[in-house]
Amino acid sequence: MGVGAVIRRMSESATASTGATKRLCEFVAAVSYDDIPEDVIDHATLMIRDTFGVSLAATVSDPFEHVYAAKRAEIEGSEPHARVLGTPLAGVLGDAALLNGMLAHALDFDDVHPDMGGHPSSPILSALLPVAERRSASGEELLHAFIVGTEVEITLANVLNPGHYERGWHPTAILGTLGAAVAVGVLLEQGSETLRRTVGIAASQASGIKANFGTMTKSYHVGRAAASGIEAARLADAGFTANPDVLEEEFGGFCDLFEGTPEHDFDGHLDALGDPWKVTTPRVGFKPYPCCGSTHGAIDAAMAAREKLGGDVVPDDVAAVEISAHSRRLGHTNRPVPQTRLDAKFSAQYCVLAALVDGDLWFDQFDPKTVTAMNRQEALKHVTVHERPDDFAGDEWGAAVRVTLVDGTTVSARVPSPTGTADNPMSDTALVQKYRRCASRAINNECVEKSVNLLTTLNDLDDVTTILDVVTP
Amino acid sequence: MGVGAVIRRMSESATASTGATKRLCEFVAAVSYDDIPEDVIDHATLMIRDTFGVSLAATVSDPFEHVYAAKRAEIEGSEPHARVLGTPLAGVLGDAALLNGMLAHALDFDDVHPDMGGHPSSPILSALLPVAERRSASGEELLHAFIVGTEVEITLANVLNPGHYERGWHPTAILGTLGAAVAVGVLLEQGSETLRRTVGIAASQASGIKANFGTMTKSYHVGRAAASGIEAARLADAGFTANPDVLEEEFGGFCDLFEGTPEHDFDGHLDALGDPWKVTTPRVGFKPYPCCGSTHGAIDAAMAAREKLGGDVVPDDVAAVEISAHSRRLGHTNRPVPQTRLDAKFSAQYCVLAALVDGDLWFDQFDPKTVTAMNRQEALKHVTVHERPDDFAGDEWGAAVRVTLVDGTTVSARVPSPTGTADNPMSDTALVQKYRRCASRAINNECVEKSVNLLTTLNDLDDVTTILDVVTP
Repeated sequence: MGVGAVIRRMSESATASTGATKRLCEFVAAVSYDDIPEDVIDHATLMIRDTFGVSLAATVSDPFEHVYAAKRAEIEGSEPHARVLGTPLAGVLGDAALLNGMLAHALDFDDVHPDMGGHPSSPILSALLPVAERRSASGEELLHAFIVGTEVEITLANVLNPGHYERGWHPTAILGTLGAAVAVGVLLEQGSETLRRTVGIAASQASGIKANFGTMTKSYHVGRAAASGIEAARLADAGFTANPDVLEEEFGGFCDLFEGTPEHDFDGHLDALGDPWKVTTPRVGFKPYPCCGSTHGAIDAAMAAREKLGGDVVPDDVAAVEISAHSRRLGHTNRPVPQTRLDAKFSAQYCVLAALVDGDLWFDQFDPKTVTAMNRQEALKHVTVHERPDDFAGDEWGAAVRVTLVDGTTVSARVPSPTGTADNPMSDTALVQKYRRCASRAINNECVEKSVNLLTTLNDLDDVTTILDVVTP
Repeated sequence: MGVGAVIRRMSESATASTGATKRLCEFVAAVSYDDIPEDVIDHATLMIRDTFGVSLAATVSDPFEHVYAAKRAEIEGSEPHARVLGTPLAGVLGDAALLNGMLAHALDFDDVHPDMGGHPSSPILSALLPVAERRSASGEELLHAFIVGTEVEITLANVLNPGHYERGWHPTAILGTLGAAVAVGVLLEQGSETLRRTVGIAASQASGIKANFGTMTKSYHVGRAAASGIEAARLADAGFTANPDVLEEEFGGFCDLFEGTPEHDFDGHLDALGDPWKVTTPRVGFKPYPCCGSTHGAIDAAMAAREKLGGDVVPDDVAAVEISAHSRRLGHTNRPVPQTRLDAKFSAQYCVLAALVDGDLWFDQFDPKTVTAMNRQEALKHVTVHERPDDFAGDEWGAAVRVTLVDGTTVSARVPSPTGTADNPMSDTALVQKYRRCASRAINNECVEKSVNLLTTLNDLDDVTTILDVVTP
C-alpha cells in the first residue's frame, strides 16, 4: 500500500475531535515497511551506516570515557544486558542507549537534517539498537522503526523551528527524545493509543539546553534522549498514563513550552507525514570532516586551493589566508587562536589552515598537540575571516578562500555548497571511506569490512545482532 | 560560625567576574551544619519525617506499581544496590532514587513551599537516601545536605517564579532536579567548582511539563528529578564538563529558558541565601488531607460544620452545601461529578461532602467505589461552589461552607487559613498521627513506632541506614 492509502486510511478513522498527537500516532501505527519508497530506505541505510561509523570512532573520545567511568560499576553489574556499540560493554537497555547516544554525538560528526538544526539519526539509532538486540529484530524492522521515528522527529522540528532553535533549546536533544520514543514504540509494535502515551511520557523527559554546547554535556544530551525514548515506550507498554494530547495541549503542552511562540501549523505538517518522507526531502546530509558544519564550505575551498598549489604547502609558506563566508557561519567559528580540541573544531581559521597544509581533515588534525604546534599557531596569525560579498553564488553555507604564499603566489577557490549537503552529496565511495576510517579506530580491518557489507545490505539482514557481533571487539 | 560569617567569607573570595552560579555554589560549599539555626534543623526534621510517611503510604499506589512493573527485571538484576523506601526492593542509585521519588509524590500528599508552587522535599530526599545509604551518612549529614539543597531549590524558585510556574513548567520537577543535584553534591562533599559542573549537568536534565498533571507521569517527574540529581553529581565527580555559569548564561541558560522572562533578580535572591533560611521563611507547610491543597480550606470548614451538627451526617441528609472559595482555588477544583480517584482528589465538591459525612478525609474516601457510591453521587448534586465575597477574612486559601439539611437545619463555618499552612500549622501530634497512619500501610506497628522515634531524633543518628532497616518490610 502506498502512502496515499495510509493517509486515506487515517482520515477514514478520524473523528471530529482528532488532535495532533492522535493524528500523528495513527500515522505511525498505520504505516508499514512496504509503504516506504526504496530511495528512502536506501538513504536511511546510509544514515544508519554513517552513525555506526561515527559511533565507533568515538569509542576513544573524552565524553564517552568520562560517562563510562561514572557509571562503570552499575553497567558491569547489571542484568539483563544490551551491548554498547563498538565496545566490550553491555548494560541495561537505558544505559546501553545512553552510552550509544554519547558515542554517536561525541565527535559532532553525525548526520545533519537542514530542517532540524540538528542531528536526526544519533538519538534514534542509539535507542533502537539495544531494543533491536533484545528482540533480535531484522534489518527491515530496524529500518522501519528508524525511518518512522525520523519522520516524527523532523515533522515536530518543522512545527517548532525556527522558534525552538532560536530560543536556545538543543533540537537534537528535545526532538530526539520524541523521535527515539516513537521509533522504539514502532519496534515494540505499539498501537496508536499506546503510542500516544509514549509520546506523552517522552514529552516530560525532553531536556537539553544550548548553554552546555562546547562541553561534554552536549553529547550527554543525545545519550539521555535515547535512554528517555526507551523508558517512555517501556512505561507506556507497562500501562503508565500520560496526557494523550500532549503535543497540542494549550497550557503546559510540548509545543507550547518548547517553541515559545503561540502558532503551530500542525495541520500542514501532519498532512506532510510520509508525503514526502523527511529522510530524503530535504535530504539528510553527512559530514566529511569531524568539525563544525559551518566550517565545511571554507574547508572545501581550502582543499581546492591546495590542489591548485600542487598539494605541497607547509605552515611557514603561508603569508595570508582570507576566508569569506556567510555571517551566520562566522558567528561561532571566528576563533583566531584555538587552543583545545573543541576550540579547533569550531575555528574556521584553524580548519582552513589544517586543510591547506595537510590536505586532510581528520581526528589527528584536532589533537591538542597538533593544534598548538608552534608553526601552526604562528601561521594562524595570517589567517583572517570576512563576511562574504552579497553577490556570492550558492547557498549560505558556501565560502571562498584566497591564499597568498610568502613567495607571492596567490590562488583563490570558491565553493557554493559544501561536500555532504544535498546540493553536493558525498559519493558512496567517500561515505564508505569515511566509515572505514571511523570504524578502524575501534575494530580490526576484517571486522570493518564485514560490518560495512552488513550495513550496506541492512534490509537483507535477518537479525541485526549479527552486526553487533561484528562491531563488538 | 553564623550565616553572616559565611556570607562574609564568600565575599572575601569573590572576584570581579563573580556570576550567579559561582556565588550560589560558593555558598553551598562554604556553609556547614553548624551554620544552620536549630529551628531550621527542627523543621527540616519534620519535613523528612513527613516525606518518609507519605512515601510509605504510596507503596500501594498505582503509579509506583506501574513504574516498578516496567523496570522490574533491571532493578532486581542490578548491582550495587540501594534500597527503595518502604519496599523490599533495591536498585542502582538512579533507579532507587526514581522509585523513591515516584513514591514521595504519587499521592500528592507531600509538603508544600508557598514560594515554590510545588513540593520541596520529595525530589531532594528521594535523591539523598540512596546516596546516604551507600555512604552510611549520619543524620546530621543528611539534614545538612537536605537543608542546603532545599535552600538552593527555593532560591531558584524565587528567581524564576511566578513566570516559571505560569508558563506551564512543573516547578517540583524542574527546580527539584537542581535542588536534588546540589543536595547530593553536598553529601558527596563537592567543592564549589565541582558543584558548578553538577549544576550545569543538572540544568540539561531538568524537565517536566504541566500537560501531564493528572496522570502517572506527574509523579514520574519527581522520580526523574531525583535520579537526575544523582546522575549530575556523579558525572561531575567523574570529571564531566558542563557550563559553569549555566544559571545566568544569557542564551540557552537555565534561567533564560525556564522563566521565559528576561529579568532575574539574582543578586537580591543570592543575598538571601541562608538569610533567612527558606525551610522556615516562609515555613514549609504540610498536608493533612491526601487531596489537592486548594480544597483544604473548604474541607476544614466542612469539618467544623459537621462538628456543629453533632458529628452525625449521612449523604441522604444533605439538602444543600454551598462552598465559598477564592477563584484561584476553584479553577481546577470545580468538579461537580468526579468518577475516579484523581477526579475526586481534585473535586472541592466531593472533598467537602466526604469530610461532612465521614468526619475524616483519608485514602479510603478516594477509593473509586466510595467516590461513585450512589448515595454520594446523589448528594453531590446538592453541592455547589461559589467565588467567595471580597470582604472574606484571611488569605486566599481560606474558604467557607454553608450546609442545609433536609430537616431545614442550617450551619455555616469559615476558615481563614487551612490546617497545615504557616498561619495554621499542624501540631506535632497531628503530624505524628499522619505519619503513623501513612506508614502503617507499608510496615507493621512496631516498625512504625521505631521509625517515628528515629525520624524525630534524626540529628542524633549515627547512620541513616538504621532507619532504612526499620522501614524495609
